[in-house]
Amino acid sequence: MLGLEGVFQEQELPLLIRREGMVKRLDETLQILDRRQLPGEIRFLNCSNVEQAAEAIENMVIQGAFSISIVAGYALTLLPWSGDEKQYLNALQFASERLIKTRPTGLALKRMMLRCGTHVKEVLDQRGDPQKGLVQFVDRAAEKLAQQGWRTGEQAAELLADGDTVLTHCFPDRSYAYMLMALKASNKKISVVCSETRPYLQGAKLTALCAHEAGFETSVITDGMGGYLMQQGEISVLITAADRVCMDGSVCNKVGTYQYALAAQANGIPYYVLRQSGPDIESKNPDHITVEMRDGEEIVNWGGQRTTPVGVSGLYPSFDITPPELVSGIVTDRGVFPANDIPNYVTAKPYVLDAIV
Amino acid sequence: MLGLEGVFQEQELPLLIRREGMVKRLDETLQILDRRQLPGEIRFLNCSNVEQAAEAIENMVIQGAFSISIVAGYALTLLPWSGDEKQYLNALQFASERLIKTRPTGLALKRMMLRCGTHVKEVLDQRGDPQKGLVQFVDRAAEKLAQQGWRTGEQAAELLADGDTVLTHCFPDRSYAYMLMALKASNKKISVVCSETRPYLQGAKLTALCAHEAGFETSVITDGMGGYLMQQGEISVLITAADRVCMDGSVCNKVGTYQYALAAQANGIPYYVLRQSGPDIESKNPDHITVEMRDGEEIVNWGGQRTTPVGVSGLYPSFDITPPELVSGIVTDRGVFPANDIPNYVTAKPYVLDAIV
Repeated sequence: MLGLEGVFQEQELPLLIRREGMVKRLDETLQILDRRQLPGEIRFLNCSNVEQAAEAIENMVIQGAFSISIVAGYALTLLPWSGDEKQYLNALQFASERLIKTRPTGLALKRMMLRCGTHVKEVLDQRGDPQKGLVQFVDRAAEKLAQQGWRTGEQAAELLADGDTVLTHCFPDRSYAYMLMALKASNKKISVVCSETRPYLQGAKLTALCAHEAGFETSVITDGMGGYLMQQGEISVLITAADRVCMDGSVCNKVGTYQYALAAQANGIPYYVLRQSGPDIESKNPDHITVEMRDGEEIVNWGGQRTTPVGVSGLYPSFDITPPELVSGIVTDRGVFPANDIPNYVTAKPYVLDAIV
Repeated sequence: MLGLEGVFQEQELPLLIRREGMVKRLDETLQILDRRQLPGEIRFLNCSNVEQAAEAIENMVIQGAFSISIVAGYALTLLPWSGDEKQYLNALQFASERLIKTRPTGLALKRMMLRCGTHVKEVLDQRGDPQKGLVQFVDRAAEKLAQQGWRTGEQAAELLADGDTVLTHCFPDRSYAYMLMALKASNKKISVVCSETRPYLQGAKLTALCAHEAGFETSVITDGMGGYLMQQGEISVLITAADRVCMDGSVCNKVGTYQYALAAQANGIPYYVLRQSGPDIESKNPDHITVEMRDGEEIVNWGGQRTTPVGVSGLYPSFDITPPELVSGIVTDRGVFPANDIPNYVTAKPYVLDAIV
């Protein structure tokens, strides 16, 4: 099958990086695994139009920059093609803008929308069916992202030694899962410590699930505990993903990452960033990044119960910026770059030709 | 009344530092405000023997080093006096050891037990009723702690300027609440940002409640967000309590404090520690501190729901150690000391004579 898989077969992979663990397109409907219900329940959300998919992204049904971009790509394939080119292009424009607005910080989503737009124009120029064209395009894009993720994970695994304990924050998505697969393939045993990542607990729910499925010893801590464990000599390496890397080597990732990067440096622990597709050439530095401010109510409510008095507000910046001097290396499909050498990614030999981001 | 109050009347104070907001001794029973139920509910737990009180402390019904010490002191007053000296002293010894074991990291609890023991011996030497003697002793000890807290809060308030935004982690107990009262009395308006402090949410539940009651603009963040806000220039000062301060100026406080101290230093933000009773003269350095490891299940369960797959374990170190070079000053009842000058506390002029810790 045309798949999301890299070199592994789907069924060998942890759930979250299988096609069914992200999104499947079936009968003009997207079936998205609802990550908010994990690990307790495997529940799927069906979206039959763009607005439903946009809301699913906004409401954190799907999480992780690359996974979001794939869902958004498939969301565009829900636009019906009636043969009216102008109407279709208008709808596509409107849908892309709606989807980009769902999560403003990541880059992959924007790039996917842009490339889908370009592809549709090419298909229309050749009198093709743009909806069918888009399905093929997004299938292929997802596959390329998987290959890129595999290559990145493979290289990240080489940075680790048997017996290491790796701390992660949030869910570092496919590259991380492939890193675990590569470690397994080479018989390196590591221990995994997952920072729970409030308020959505991606660390406890998603990263821990992935690592546990892959067979590694896995523990969960709260977001305030990583520094203590580093200080105690219990962490060998800090690894996170990045929602965006600037050309100056600054790393934008889930809020909490910066504190861990500071603690890693203070304790002489390397910090590697998994960013399969390299830097954003349009972001010279962090001034070019909009850090998403989400609804503070998501901070002060848990399971329908308010955790703080009425009249007290929640603040919810979703991401933070780690300066390049705290980063030991950025792992990409084209190699591991020191943070301030990351512009060299652009001219390095591609591993996957013409990948989306 | 013999009270916990410093210079303020009870009813002017935020709930958590009123006598009823900690513990009341009524008819041979302790009535403890169950802090786990806040802010939603004001519910009291009644304890009529030492074991019940010990379990209440273990189970986080009461929190904060000094408040715990007061509850433990009153717990000893539940031991009945039948006139048999040997039996009473044995029971006291057993009860003290049980209570000390509830929370091994803080110092105030141990000191309270020690001083209660000494006091009982004095009362018995004078043929007095040791149970009645203990009630008076703990009443007076609580009052002295309140006065010490007030003096500490007053000095902390002088370190702040109108318009400051103060970040705190966990609940910095009475000194912090008195600091807010002192700011209010001097008409300084500050904003308060409370780090929620997983897993028990003392920041969201207790600190935010206190600051909101005192009339300050209050927000709650998750434990991973403080560094980002500092980086954005949105925090003027970091303030926490300390469960113990070593003679070398190291600060032991709720886990997560160390990460914030690192972020404060990286961003040129002062970090003040409220420690009303100064250093532990028996702890030369952090090697003398036992960091409490609590049950990891408290990390991976929320409201009866497991947040991570079965087979993944939670890790729960309760405290961390901040080295003296990250601390701008330690605020005590005897003045504000640079961290490595803290041994001078011991010989400085006492504000409260013969306070417990």
